[in-house]
Order: sequence, then structure tokens, then C-alpha cells
Amino acid sequence: MNRNIETPICDLGFSDKQEAVQPEALKLASRTRRRSSAASTCSFSSACFTASSDEDTVISPREKKQRNTKGFTDFCVKNVLSQHGFGRREIEIAEQEMPGIMTLRKRAREDKPLRNANIVCCTHINAQTAVMVEGLIELGASVRWASCNIYSTQNAVAAALAEAGIPVFAWRGETEEDFWWCLDKCINAPGWAPNMILDDGGDATHLMWKKYPEIFKGIKGIVEESLTGVHRLYHMSKNGKLTVPAINVNDSVTKMKFDNFYCVQDSILDSLKRSTDIMFGGKQVVVCGYGDVGKGCAKSLKAQGCIVYVTEIDPICALQASMDGHRVVTLNEVIRNVDIVVTATGNKNIVTREHMNRMKNGCIVCNMGHSNSEIDVNSLHTPELTWERVRSQVDHIIWPDGRMIILLAEGRLVNMSCSTIPSFVVSITASTQALALIELYNAIPGRYKNDVYLLPKKMDEYVASLHLPTFDAHLTELTDEQAKYLGLNKSGPFKPNYYRY
Amino acid sequence: MNRNIETPICDLGFSDKQEAVQPEALKLASRTRRRSSAASTCSFSSACFTASSDEDTVISPREKKQRNTKGFTDFCVKNVLSQHGFGRREIEIAEQEMPGIMTLRKRAREDKPLRNANIVCCTHINAQTAVMVEGLIELGASVRWASCNIYSTQNAVAAALAEAGIPVFAWRGETEEDFWWCLDKCINAPGWAPNMILDDGGDATHLMWKKYPEIFKGIKGIVEESLTGVHRLYHMSKNGKLTVPAINVNDSVTKMKFDNFYCVQDSILDSLKRSTDIMFGGKQVVVCGYGDVGKGCAKSLKAQGCIVYVTEIDPICALQASMDGHRVVTLNEVIRNVDIVVTATGNKNIVTREHMNRMKNGCIVCNMGHSNSEIDVNSLHTPELTWERVRSQVDHIIWPDGRMIILLAEGRLVNMSCSTIPSFVVSITASTQALALIELYNAIPGRYKNDVYLLPKKMDEYVASLHLPTFDAHLTELTDEQAKYLGLNKSGPFKPNYYRY
Amino acid sequence: MNRNIETPICDLGFSDKQEAVQPEALKLASRTRRRSSAASTCSFSSACFTASSDEDTVISPREKKQRNTKGFTDFCVKNVLSQHGFGRREIEIAEQEMPGIMTLRKRAREDKPLRNANIVCCTHINAQTAVMVEGLIELGASVRWASCNIYSTQNAVAAALAEAGIPVFAWRGETEEDFWWCLDKCINAPGWAPNMILDDGGDATHLMWKKYPEIFKGIKGIVEESLTGVHRLYHMSKNGKLTVPAINVNDSVTKMKFDNFYCVQDSILDSLKRSTDIMFGGKQVVVCGYGDVGKGCAKSLKAQGCIVYVTEIDPICALQASMDGHRVVTLNEVIRNVDIVVTATGNKNIVTREHMNRMKNGCIVCNMGHSNSEIDVNSLHTPELTWERVRSQVDHIIWPDGRMIILLAEGRLVNMSCSTIPSFVVSITASTQALALIELYNAIPGRYKNDVYLLPKKMDEYVASLHLPTFDAHLTELTDEQAKYLGLNKSGPFKPNYYRY
Amino acid sequence: MNRNIETPICDLGFSDKQEAVQPEALKLASRTRRRSSAASTCSFSSACFTASSDEDTVISPREKKQRNTKGFTDFCVKNVLSQHGFGRREIEIAEQEMPGIMTLRKRAREDKPLRNANIVCCTHINAQTAVMVEGLIELGASVRWASCNIYSTQNAVAAALAEAGIPVFAWRGETEEDFWWCLDKCINAPGWAPNMILDDGGDATHLMWKKYPEIFKGIKGIVEESLTGVHRLYHMSKNGKLTVPAINVNDSVTKMKFDNFYCVQDSILDSLKRSTDIMFGGKQVVVCGYGDVGKGCAKSLKAQGCIVYVTEIDPICALQASMDGHRVVTLNEVIRNVDIVVTATGNKNIVTREHMNRMKNGCIVCNMGHSNSEIDVNSLHTPELTWERVRSQVDHIIWPDGRMIILLAEGRLVNMSCSTIPSFVVSITASTQALALIELYNAIPGRYKNDVYLLPKKMDEYVASLHLPTFDAHLTELTDEQAKYLGLNKSGPFKPNYYRY
Repeated sequence: MNRNIETPICDLGFSDKQEAVQPEALKLASRTRRRSSAASTCSFSSACFTASSDEDTVISPREKKQRNTKGFTDFCVKNVLSQHGFGRREIEIAEQEMPGIMTLRKRAREDKPLRNANIVCCTHINAQTAVMVEGLIELGASVRWASCNIYSTQNAVAAALAEAGIPVFAWRGETEEDFWWCLDKCINAPGWAPNMILDDGGDATHLMWKKYPEIFKGIKGIVEESLTGVHRLYHMSKNGKLTVPAINVNDSVTKMKFDNFYCVQDSILDSLKRSTDIMFGGKQVVVCGYGDVGKGCAKSLKAQGCIVYVTEIDPICALQASMDGHRVVTLNEVIRNVDIVVTATGNKNIVTREHMNRMKNGCIVCNMGHSNSEIDVNSLHTPELTWERVRSQVDHIIWPDGRMIILLAEGRLVNMSCSTIPSFVVSITASTQALALIELYNAIPGRYKNDVYLLPKKMDEYVASLHLPTFDAHLTELTDEQAKYLGLNKSGPFKPNYYRY
Repeated sequence: MNRNIETPICDLGFSDKQEAVQPEALKLASRTRRRSSAASTCSFSSACFTASSDEDTVISPREKKQRNTKGFTDFCVKNVLSQHGFGRREIEIAEQEMPGIMTLRKRAREDKPLRNANIVCCTHINAQTAVMVEGLIELGASVRWASCNIYSTQNAVAAALAEAGIPVFAWRGETEEDFWWCLDKCINAPGWAPNMILDDGGDATHLMWKKYPEIFKGIKGIVEESLTGVHRLYHMSKNGKLTVPAINVNDSVTKMKFDNFYCVQDSILDSLKRSTDIMFGGKQVVVCGYGDVGKGCAKSLKAQGCIVYVTEIDPICALQASMDGHRVVTLNEVIRNVDIVVTATGNKNIVTREHMNRMKNGCIVCNMGHSNSEIDVNSLHTPELTWERVRSQVDHIIWPDGRMIILLAEGRLVNMSCSTIPSFVVSITASTQALALIELYNAIPGRYKNDVYLLPKKMDEYVASLHLPTFDAHLTELTDEQAKYLGLNKSGPFKPNYYRY
Repeated sequence: MNRNIETPICDLGFSDKQEAVQPEALKLASRTRRRSSAASTCSFSSACFTASSDEDTVISPREKKQRNTKGFTDFCVKNVLSQHGFGRREIEIAEQEMPGIMTLRKRAREDKPLRNANIVCCTHINAQTAVMVEGLIELGASVRWASCNIYSTQNAVAAALAEAGIPVFAWRGETEEDFWWCLDKCINAPGWAPNMILDDGGDATHLMWKKYPEIFKGIKGIVEESLTGVHRLYHMSKNGKLTVPAINVNDSVTKMKFDNFYCVQDSILDSLKRSTDIMFGGKQVVVCGYGDVGKGCAKSLKAQGCIVYVTEIDPICALQASMDGHRVVTLNEVIRNVDIVVTATGNKNIVTREHMNRMKNGCIVCNMGHSNSEIDVNSLHTPELTWERVRSQVDHIIWPDGRMIILLAEGRLVNMSCSTIPSFVVSITASTQALALIELYNAIPGRYKNDVYLLPKKMDEYVASLHLPTFDAHLTELTDEQAKYLGLNKSGPFKPNYYRY
Repeated sequence: MNRNIETPICDLGFSDKQEAVQPEALKLASRTRRRSSAASTCSFSSACFTASSDEDTVISPREKKQRNTKGFTDFCVKNVLSQHGFGRREIEIAEQEMPGIMTLRKRAREDKPLRNANIVCCTHINAQTAVMVEGLIELGASVRWASCNIYSTQNAVAAALAEAGIPVFAWRGETEEDFWWCLDKCINAPGWAPNMILDDGGDATHLMWKKYPEIFKGIKGIVEESLTGVHRLYHMSKNGKLTVPAINVNDSVTKMKFDNFYCVQDSILDSLKRSTDIMFGGKQVVVCGYGDVGKGCAKSLKAQGCIVYVTEIDPICALQASMDGHRVVTLNEVIRNVDIVVTATGNKNIVTREHMNRMKNGCIVCNMGHSNSEIDVNSLHTPELTWERVRSQVDHIIWPDGRMIILLAEGRLVNMSCSTIPSFVVSITASTQALALIELYNAIPGRYKNDVYLLPKKMDEYVASLHLPTFDAHLTELTDEQAKYLGLNKSGPFKPNYYRY
């Protein structure tokens, strides 16, 4: 038995100081997350991109009595009858690109490792998450599901889920009040005794803990996906209020690499191309920040013939950028010459009005980072500047002298707004969430204390292995002799927790 | 004051189990390290490569009374008078490529942070390490220096050091007995009270602890560079025998990235080219292992037009290889077709006799990994095979049917044997070692317990920053507002300890 | 004076045999060019992509009497009054990305090198070509303009041109009869004596030569852009019917490199991404053909992490593919395993029904080559296969066993249908056309015989130089001594005609 | 029968003007070619690199009567008896890496297409050329062989050839007089009636034409490899003195791509690494000239993490550099900042003393171009500068203020001096030469006039095809239908002569 594969996250470097002074970055993200249509923590974005804006918003779904074709009524969505067919097809298309969660469903279908699990689910609702949640049900769980974001629900998918008999409460364009009403419906229902929470942002956890403390006591585990939600959990833990174990899936190795480095390599090109039709060869680009996101951006842009400059505050990352063949500069040094500015820092006010005053005509400005504060967009709302919306998500901002800059997605995450997230990337996250639920639900008592944990390394490796057949990749197995030589178990985990992939 | 920037290494994942069953890999490395001319833990290798073998070994330096031009006699090297000029020039050339250690010397020259430090030094002795050790002296230290490897000493450099009045005891081709005699001279000398150890492999620490426990009590800190030495320290710590704090510089981020990923990108090409003059375009290569070393090999070879296959045991690394555009295969699948086999696993018996029996004619086999056991070279010493040495470090091994494979460096680290380590890479390591010595020597009492520590993140960042001017790289500084937003100190550290660069 | 900078194209290798047996490929292209909405010779494609299909086609523009806001009536377009504003803005946006033609306009504005040139213009009509044609007018020319393609006209742009007083005759969705009527209006008009032809496909030339031989006698030169048109001209020349000099701009070096190698590097990624949202990393792709188009596809896809296989008939190109790190295979060898098939051969039936029968589920099939016959799409129209249109330009074709392939753009040029051509690329072509017109119009008598010429190398170099400021690229000038050493004129041309860039 | 596959080179753009004013570049190359140990036209260079300089030069081979072990005496080499074994082994090693020429030998062994050909051979003499010449003999030819360069002969190889009974006249370090004596021995010998010439530089052709006009009348064809030799032939042709057909193999597509673009990608890295041990990551490099050699250098250096700047005089190449992601600059702009300067222009005085006065300390300067005049090395021989030879081919040149630059190979071709040419590259050239000999020797009378021809495209393709099995590359064959569609012969040639690969 592996007693020590799991690691409380607090040991991994969230030091006291960071807690004592909770970074403003996180506070802001939390406060603003439902005000922006591109929620900063959203990782399922095709919804955002493909959304049409022509939906009638006259009658709230809450005011209509609905039933699906089989007479089922325990849900609240928009237009179940007219849209479920289209939504089901979207789900089927997504299934083809989500090998991890589909394989998991197939392998564990017999075992039903989530038998009798009653899960309150609060995540984005779209074709890809539907594949995951229908998977949870296939593995034995009951689920009640609300959206974690008032703008991101794919109505047709919600309709398909309602048609399939799943209690789902969500539609695109909920009010703040609607939001809490839907979530309440998932926690408190006749004959419903939740014992697990699958959360994205911490709202389900917070509402249940605050309003339904008795129900909260029945919870065996929480799985949280977002950075914001993880910090809320950690705060609870610090203050002794976390009375159940939780798993932070946000920081799983496999998920992080795909959400950031790999996903970004595709989406920076796609975002720029779809919004501006720019030709990449010979363009001068400055990438602000050289973490996983900045590294991915810089690599792809360079491969397509851009000349990439990097700005960094951290000398280690700056040295990496240098060795990788990028000039490390301050933004001021290059701002007059570059054709494209990409922010990827997680910091605020990286690109200021002063910078934008000095950009050359036609410079493209966009944000690939965590929050929407990297570019000081507010500073552009002054009377002497003219804004022209030339395409969806593309604004020309024109100075009095005729000079113009091109702002994408109003400074929000450009790959959320102007590109799509491949289902394959979501498959990684979804598999990670499902495994975390299984782990917490089946853990022997005492294995996890009331703390925030990372997914055990071995399960992280398992998520990766579920996605290898897509590439026809063949793993090598250790011989007994080799395993002994390395001091490893033949089935993993293969690396210490601190290993830098 | 930063109370928590340093992290005892035990928190970073060396779990109990790994200790309880000390991997054989480490034990073997330890036992064999002085039997092989390419010491498995050697990171200063230009010495190995440029060494001539024509030196007279008739009279041992121990039997000759030597004095330098100023009459100084407290040293034992080979031919001090005839070679010191050439050695000094080699040191001067190295200085030009070691910006980190040179800058450190210049900056701290006045402060003398190592004033009164008496350091027993046991490392490789070559032009680059000479730059470091002369730096330690410039910063105020006294040093007595023996080599950690019986084959790697650059005699001319040792002569230059002796000429400069440094008590150095080393020559290429020491016997085992010589080795311990030299080390003894560095620990136990009239009027010498050592208070620091700079070790590479753990022998100085072990000898002093075992033979001179009274002297050992005077030690304020140990800085250890090698994996083997770190594990010996850790073992001492486990068993309660480590009575001083130690810093493991082997796992510093900056050092590791340069020793592995960046250094390897150059040296895999260089090693293959110098030894075989092979043309890279279109060659099929299998790289066994996709850690930092394997990643570096695969990236460079692919960039030069090779078709790269990867073998892996770890699904996460296998998924990375797939996403990076390499087919992940088992060695058996491709062994008949590849032109080059590169091992980079740290494991043993990766390439077996059975594999070699099936390789195609002219296949090149080499090892870039940790130990010399990755290729089962012993299995090739059978009567039916003919060995032909066609160049230094290059053997043709010929099967009865005329088929031939090309084995480089007899399976030892090929980049140690057939390439050189750039001084720039050594500069990173040397700066890390010097800073670790300064940190331990100046730490306020109680800051470090008697345990094994990683270099504080902030110092790791400082090492990186020392090397940025080489690239004319300009760091960006956080504004007060940004620092507050991120919850960071403006001067770093900028990342949590678990951050994966 | 440069007597020999221009080269009749016949010297460059269109050998007798090739003419005697005119390849069917060209004949077909010629015959089908107006039947397909993605004209095989189209190089201005944003029109195709951004076109909406909801335009009313009830009343033909020919039946409506139109006048612009200033009372001008010598044109025939759709909805001049309602659309010209939007069209003008599209033109203005295009101007920003077309540095070559804009610089040319600015430099030659005073000289008016096309003063008194009366040009019959028959090309695609869209924002980018409008920038060129308005440039011709700025340089002194009068123009009458019809479209060379019944589907590609941007109506709003045509409206803007009509509003600007340019006699333009074109709309999207012309009938075959409309097409000839419009063209006729450009040749034969009261008080109009054309002396130049700017053609794309050869129809203006053909119509004038056939129907208006007297007018044709007044022509001083023809500039032809398309492969088809060039071959028609060459055929005329062979048969002694070409009574004016013509310049083939299709084969200009600068234009060719941009239309193919550079443009393709962006558009293969963009086409696949926009249509399928596929993630590139680790995908296995076979690129059929390794000419400039195939080379561009292979390079970009590999850089994004794909594993690229190449098929070739030509051993020289195959050897290049090998050296560039791609496996050279037959399609049969890999057809069961690849995720994406890209054709780029200019040949027919590269991907047959038999191949498609064996593809794996979800395989994407698309064409980047010259014609729409590379993929045998017709063979897929059999009763047992189900076609599902899942997005614009994306069909799922489903076999009875449930296996499905994804066909893009029905096998037509995928980058024309699913991507856009950057204005920068069009700027190269447009500058080349404008310079060819200026050259022919101003050539001293006798300089050009009645033959088909390539653009003089020096002008080709000039087109390139017009686009360098975009990249802030600074040319080096030869010293007198160096020019003499190389036997070159300091202002070029710098290379012999046969030079392979 | 293909009547028109061969193309007289004069049609390919060597215009009158270029001839009238023969560029000084060529004249110089011709005049200096035997004065420099790295002959500017040398393409077989491993000889140069591996040569030792310690050979006794006391007694000239001409003064010694030699016989091989079988009593054969018709040769003049150095030390036939002591060295032939080692030479034979070098030849055998080379055979393994020369698939083209070896396959050709195997395939045509029965046919003996060179039966009764008597070839005067004047090329470099080393292991790789020996593989070719022994091939010619295997195909039926008789050969007499002298070296085309007084420094490049591998004596051991010459010994092996003599031992094998081949009349070879060459040794390293011939005097000018020796050179002509040796060549004379190959032309004029008892019972020897030469009918073919294989030349490299034009000396055999010139000597025979001048001194033995009667013998010259018996020649059926000349195959010339070097740029200089080709221009001498062309000059003869212009002046009506060329009385036999000649094939220029220098400009064959396959050979050129390998001699330049592909070969350079490996050798620029290798040359820099072997001579300076520099680390590539982050180094700033300026590559002067962006032809095939510059392109190869820039690509490899960028891939290894260098930041590459390009200088160009030709706007088309400059635009290519921009699109490929390199800044195009003048040398003056960057000369103070770069770490490495690489010349690849074929021009002179690219790097002047003035540039070198401004380089930063430690800047590396080397030449990859055609001649040794690109760097103005002479300007560095002034009293205030100190030259230090730090390694073979590496000089430190030190300014009075201590600043130092590192000059490689004294400005001669660095990849000839500091790297090796892979046998694979030589195999391409050797196959091309052998096929050219076969073509001329077997051509039906009248097929070739007394002019200079390029190798027929079909044979160029055949050379490529001979090298595909090395990469396990599988060509696709045209179907009858496809060949008809393209207007091509199924067995090639596949491209028009002007095609740019």
C-alpha cells in the first residue's frame, strides 16, 4: 500500500507569508469572476467562442414549467425540447476527442467506483464537461449540476442533459440571483444527500458550508479545479474551517502542462490569426513573462518566423529565455518597434497607457495571462481616443494623430475569446477531476486529513497514460532488476514529487 | 529577514521508502566512481578530453621534493616549474567564459565574506575549478585542495595553483593510496583548522568524519555537489550522524537546467560529430529516456534533421514526448531500423546484448545518462565478437557475419569523453558552490539545523542573474504596486519552491 | 542600359515536348475554372472566405439603372449606395498591410509612369486588388474593370469603386453570360481605346483577340497572373498569334515564394485549426508532395509538434525531405495510421477511395495543392456512405461500420476555403503586376518582342525591396570594389536568372 | 529517346556581360588556388583536417624507386609499403558511408559502361575519392591519377591505390614543379591513349590542350567539378577552343544542395564547437550573406538557440531572411554587440579592419564562404596587434587595450579547416562525376556538341535516388493516368530545368 504518494499542498511551498498577505491578484480574481464574460478561471472555452448573442432573454427559464420527452421535470434549462438533439450531437463529437475520460468510463463501467456517490457539481456546462459528468454517472454517481459561470453555459448541451434525465440547472445569461438559485437547487433537494463536491471556483463549497452546515457534514471530499477555489479552500484550512479533505486538481502536473505550455502553443497562433489574419513571418513580438504560458507563446511564434523578445522579473526564467534564443529586454526598450505585444505574467499593469502611447501604428496587443488586468485597458477610455470595433473581439483604438493600435478581446484572455480549447486538453482536466473524485470517495478513513492535497503522483501518471493510445505511444516496462536498481515500484510513481518535468 | 527561503531537502519528496531501500543505482555509482576514467559524477570534463596520455609515470610526485619559484613547498603536484605558465594561461582563458564567478569575485572582493574561512576542498582540478577556488581565496578564504578523481586533474593547472602559493595535492593518475594521502594532506596539516568543506562525492566529508572527528567538530558547513555525495550526507542525516548543516548544490534549479537540458543540447551533437563525423540529416535516432537529458538530446537532434524516437517508462514524460513530436516506442520496435541509439535514463541494462544483436550495420550506440551501466557493454566481451579501436573513444564491434556496431566511449558518458563542457556551464556550478559556502559560513546560528538543504531560492536566482550580462539581458523590476498585487518581495524570490521551470 | 535583363520564358525550360503534349492538368484547369467557387487559380481569397451567402439574387444588377452619389453611371455593381461605405473601409484596412503597392503609389505619384495607359482589367475584385487598381489610376492610368471569377467579387468593394467613379462591372454570383457581358463592357466602350491588358486567366486577352481584333492591335502589352493564362499566351505565341509582348508574373521569384512556401506555412495551420479545432502536438500527418507547398506545410506542422511523413515521385525532392527529417513513404504504408492527410502535388487522384476506405476513424483529409482533383472526392458519392455537413467547409463522411473521415472544403484548396490570404502576400503580387505594366508600357520599341517574358530580375528584386521596410530590414550596399570583384552592377540584378533562392 | 534532357549551360543565364567582364572573384580563385592549403574549390576535405604535419619532406618521392608488394612500379607516392594497409582501411570505412557510388558500382559491374575508357584523373586524393576512382575501374575504365592540390593528398590512401596497381602520382606537399610532373605522368605515358578527362580545377584539361594537342584530339569528354574549372572551360568555349563536350557537375542540383545547404547545417556548428568549445544558447551571431550557405548557417545556429542577424545586398534574399525570422541589418549596426561573425557571401572585404576594431572582446570571426578574402585578414598584420595561436586553426588577436578577437582558420573556409566533410556528401559528388563520365562516354555522336553542359536532369535525379535507401525512403510511382495528366514520363525527369528546389 502506498502510504505516502499523496502530498498535502501546504508542504509544497505555499509559505506562511504568502498566506498572511493574501496576494491581491487572487482576491481580485475572486471578486470579478462573474462580472466578465471571459471568466478568468474558465478552462472550457469553446462555449464562449461559439456562443451566439441572439438568444431571447425575455422569459427566464425559472418562470417556465418544463419537462423532457419522457416527462422528467427536475431541471431548469432553456428550450429543452427544441435543442437537445443538437446538444447531444455536440457531446458525441466531443467524445471522439476525449480519449482519457472515455477510456476511464469504459474501464470502470463494471466496477462502478462511484456507486452511491452523490455529487454536487458546479462547473462550466458545455459539451466537454458533459462528457465528464455523464462519465461520473456511468461510474455509479448521482449528480446535480449547476454552472459556475453565468455566461459560459452551452444551452443546447444543458438541454441534452435534461433530456437524458440529469438534474441540471443552468442557462447562458443567468443573473447573479439566478446563479445562486441554481446552485441551491443542486445542494438542497428532496431526498438528496450529497456526499461529494466537484467545484470550480469554490462557490458550491462556500454556499453549502455557509447555508447548509448539516449537509456539509455529510461530505466526504471536495475536488476543486480553479486557482481561486483552491485558495479559498486553503484559507479555510488555515482557519480551521475545512472539515473535509480536498484535492486541488489545478496543480496536477499533466493538467498544468496541457492547460499552459502545450495548449498555448496552438492557441496563440490561432488567436492572432483568427482575429487579425496577420502573417507571422518576420513579425517582431514581445512576450511579457516566460513561465509556461510565455514559453509556449515564444516557442510557437519563433517557429513561425517571428522575432521574439521576452520580458522577465525572475532571473532564472530570464536565463532560460536567453538560452532558448530570445533577447531579454525591458518593455520600454522595444515598445516602439514591435508588431505584437503578448502578456503572460499573471501580474497587473504590464502594458500601461504610456506604453500604448508609444507603440507603432498597427501594433497588436493581447493578453494570454491569468487575469484581465495585465493590459491597462481602462486607461484607454479617455476622450481623445477613438474606439472602433472592427470585428468581434477586435478593437482599433485610434490616437488623435491617426496612429492606431489593435486590441484583442478587450484585454481579456485572448485564447478564451478568439480561439478554442481543444477537447483533448479538456479530456486531461476531466480525467483528473474524475480520478480525484474516485480517490477521495474510496480512500480508507484517515488516509486524507482535512487538508488540501495534490492528486497523488500515481494518479497523475495514470491520467497521462489514458491519453497515450491517441498517439499510438508504447510505454516501456521496467524489469524487476531495473525497478530494484532504481528503487521504484514497477507501476510507478516514477518520479519524486518535486520533479520538474 | 527571510526566515523561510531555505528548504530542507527532505521536504521535497525524498520519501521514507526511497531511503529505506537505498536504490542500487546510487550504491553502485558510489562504489565505482574512482575506477572509471570518466567518473560518473564528473561535471568538469574538459580535463578528461584534452588530457594527453604520454606523461611519464615513473616517479610519483610524492617522492619528489618540490618548490615553486618563490620557494613555497606546501603542495604536491607534477612538474610545477615546467608547466605552471601553460596552466596559468588555461585559467585565464577559462576566466573569460565564467562571468558568474568572475562577477562574484569582483563584487565581493571588498566585503571578503569568506574571511577566516578555512576550506577543505575536494573537487576536480582543472582550469574552470581553479577560477572558482582562486575566487574563494579572493573572497577571504584559505583553502587546501585535493582532487576528487584520480584521473581528472589537469597537471598544468595544478602546477599554476602551486606556483600561486595554494596548497594543492593532486596529479593525473593517482593510485587509490595516493588519493587518500592527498586528501589527508588537506585535512590534517600543521596550524590548519578547517571550518568548511567543499566536497564532490563525499570523500572529504567521510574521511574527516571518520578519521578526524575532532576536526569535524569545527566544521560550520558542508557544500556538496554530486548526487552520490548528497545521498551519503542524507544517509548520515537519517542516522543522526550529520552534525553540521550541508547544502546540496546538485539540485539547484539553475545548475540542473544547465548541467542537463542546455548543456546536452550542444554536447550530444558535438559528441557524435567529433567521434564519427556522421551527417545528422535523416538519421533515425532512438533516445531512451525523456527527462531533462533526453529532452535536450531529442530537441537538438530533431532540429538538425534527425527522426527521433523516444522510449519511456513514465506516462507523463511519454505524453510530453508525444506532444513534442516524437514517436514513443519500445526499443524492440525500432532497434532494427535506427542509425543511432542514445541512452539517457539513469537506469541499467537499457541496451542489452540482445538489442545489439539486432542492430543494423553501422549503428552508433552511446550513453548520455548518469551511469555507465545503461549499455550492457560487458555482454559484448565474448569471443565471437571482434573489437576494433578505430579512434580514441570509438570502437567497432564486429559480428561473425560482418555486421558492425559503433560503440562510443565504451558506454561511459559520451559527452564527458567525446566532447567538452563549456566553461559557461561550469561557471553556473561554481557560482552556486561559492554562494552556498558564503551562505553557510555567514548564516546566523540556528538558521540551519544539522540537515541537508537546497540552496535558498533567492541565491539560486542570484546565480542566474550573475550570468545575464553575458547575454546583454535586461531584467524588468516589479513596481511596488505589482509586488503587492503578487504578494512578492521586489528582490525575490519570485517563485515558490515547487515551481517547475 | 540593360539590354539583357529580361528573359523570354521559353528559354527557361518549357521544352518542345511539354508544349506538343500539353499536360491535361492545365487543360482541365482552364476548362473548369469558372465552375468552381474556389477557382483553382485564385490568389485573392479573403473574398471567398468572408462571403455571406444570403444575398438576394432576384434582380440582376444588369436590369437596374444605377448611379453613384455624384451621378456617375458607367458601372454595374450591386447596391452601390448602401454598401460603398463599408467597402471603402475594407479597402483602407487592406492598404495598411500592403506596403509594397502603397510605397509604389507614393513614389511614382509625381512621375505618373502610366499616364495615358488605358487598361482593361480582368482580375478578382476585392479589397486588396482595389488597392492595386486604385494605385494604377494614381500612377496615371485609366481602367475598366471586370471580375475574372463569377463567385469571388466582394460586392461592397465593387460598390466603393463605383462610388469613386471607376467603371467596374462585377458582382458575386454572375452567370456565365453575365461574365462575358461585364468583360465586354470593359473592352468595348464609347471613346475607350485600350492599350494595356491586366489579365488573370486569359479571358480578357482571348475575348479581345477573338471579338475585337482591331482593338487588340492597339495593345502595347499584356500582364498575366495565372498559370492557366500564361499557358494560353504561350500557346498563342507558339502558333504565331501573339502580336504583343506579354509578361508572366506568375513565375516571378518573389511572388512564387510568397504564394507558396511562406503563405502556406501560416495557412496550413490556420485552415486545419479553424475548421476542426484539432490540437497539433503528436498528430501523425502525411504530406503528399514536397515542392514549395509541401515543404511549407511540412515545416509548419513539424514545428507545431506533428510527426510528418512525405510522399514524393521525384528523388531529389525525396532526398530533401529525408534530410529535413521527414520519413519518405508511400501513401499505402501509412494510410492506416495517420491523423491528417494533406495533398500538395498538383497531380490527380493522389488520395483514392481505396485509401479512404483504409483511413482510421476521424482522419482529416484536405488539399493544399493546385487543383481540386488531388483527392478523389467523386468516389465518395456512393450510396453506402453518409455525408454530414458539420460546419461550413467541413464534412463528416461515414462508412457503414461507423468509421468516419473529415473532408475539408470538399477537396478544393483548403487554404482558400478555410483560411485567409494575408494582404501582405497580395501586396507582393500586386506590386509585381503594377511593375510589369509599367515596364511594358514604357519599354522602348523593340525591347520586347511578341513573346512571353518573365518580369526582369531587377524588377523582381525591386518588388522585394518595397516590402523590406515592413520588417525594418536594412540592405547592405556593395562597394565599388566589391561590385567589380563580383562583376555586378551595384544596383542589381544580383543573381543570374537560374539562381535557386 | 530523350533528345532534350540536357541543357547547354550558356542558356541558363550566364549572360554576355558576365563573360565580357570576367569577375575578378573567379580570376583570383584561379590564381591562388594552389597557394593555400585550404584550396578554395576543395570539396573533399577530411584530408585537410586529419593531416599531420610531421612528415619528413627530406627526400622527394620522385627520387625514390618504388615498387608495391607485387612488383608494380608505375606510380609515385610516399611510403607505399609502410602505409598501404592503413590507407586501405580508411577506404573501407569510407565505403560504408558512400551508398551512392557503392550502389552504382554494384549495379553497373556487369555492364561495364566505362569499358575501354582511359581516364586522366586530376582530383583530390583521399579515402572518399578513392572509393569513386576504384569504382570507375570496376565499371571498366583505366585510370591514371594525379592530385589537383599540392596539400590535400592522403598519403596512406595513395599508397593503398599504388598497392592495388593503380598508376597514382601524388603526395602531400608537392612543389609546383612536382605538381606538373605528376600530372604529366598521367597524360603522357607509354601505351596510354586517354579518351576522357575527370578534372577538378581545369589543370589536366589545360595541360593536355596546351602541351599535348594530339592527345587532346582523342578526348571524348571532360567532366569538371570546380567553379574555377567550369569557368575555364566556358572561356575556351567562348573562344572556340573547346573541341570536346564537357559536363559541369559543379552546378548539379543534388550536389549543390548537399555541398552547401545541408552540409553547412552540420559543419557550422561543428567548426565553431571544435575550435572554441563555445556554448550556442543565447549567442548573438551575424551571418553575412543569405544564399544557400548563409541559409544553412542561420538555420542551424538559430535551432541551437543563437540569435541570428543577417546582412544581404539582394532584396529577395533579404526578404527571405526576414520571413525566416532573422533581423536583416548592416554589419555596422550590430558589430559592437555580436558574439560571432560568419561570412558566407563569396564577396571580398566583408569584414574589414574597421569592423574588427569595433568588435567586442572575445568575438569569434570565421568564414564559411567561397574564398578566403571575405575577412580582410591582411589588415590584421600590423605591429600594434598581437597574434597568439591558442590551438590549431585558432588565433587570438589582441588589441593594445587588451581587447581580443578570435579568428578561425586565418579566414579561410572554416568548415574545411576545423570540421570534416561527411563521406555521405562526397558520395553525392562522386556519383555525379561517375554518371557524367558514363553519359559523355556513351552518348551517341552528335548528342553533345563541343560545349559545356549541365548533367541531364534525369541523371541528377538518379544520383538522388541512389542515396534514398540510406534513409529507407520509398518513392511513389506515377500511374499511367497521372503521368499523362502531368505530361511527364513515368521515369522522369520530373521537373523543368528552371525549377527551384
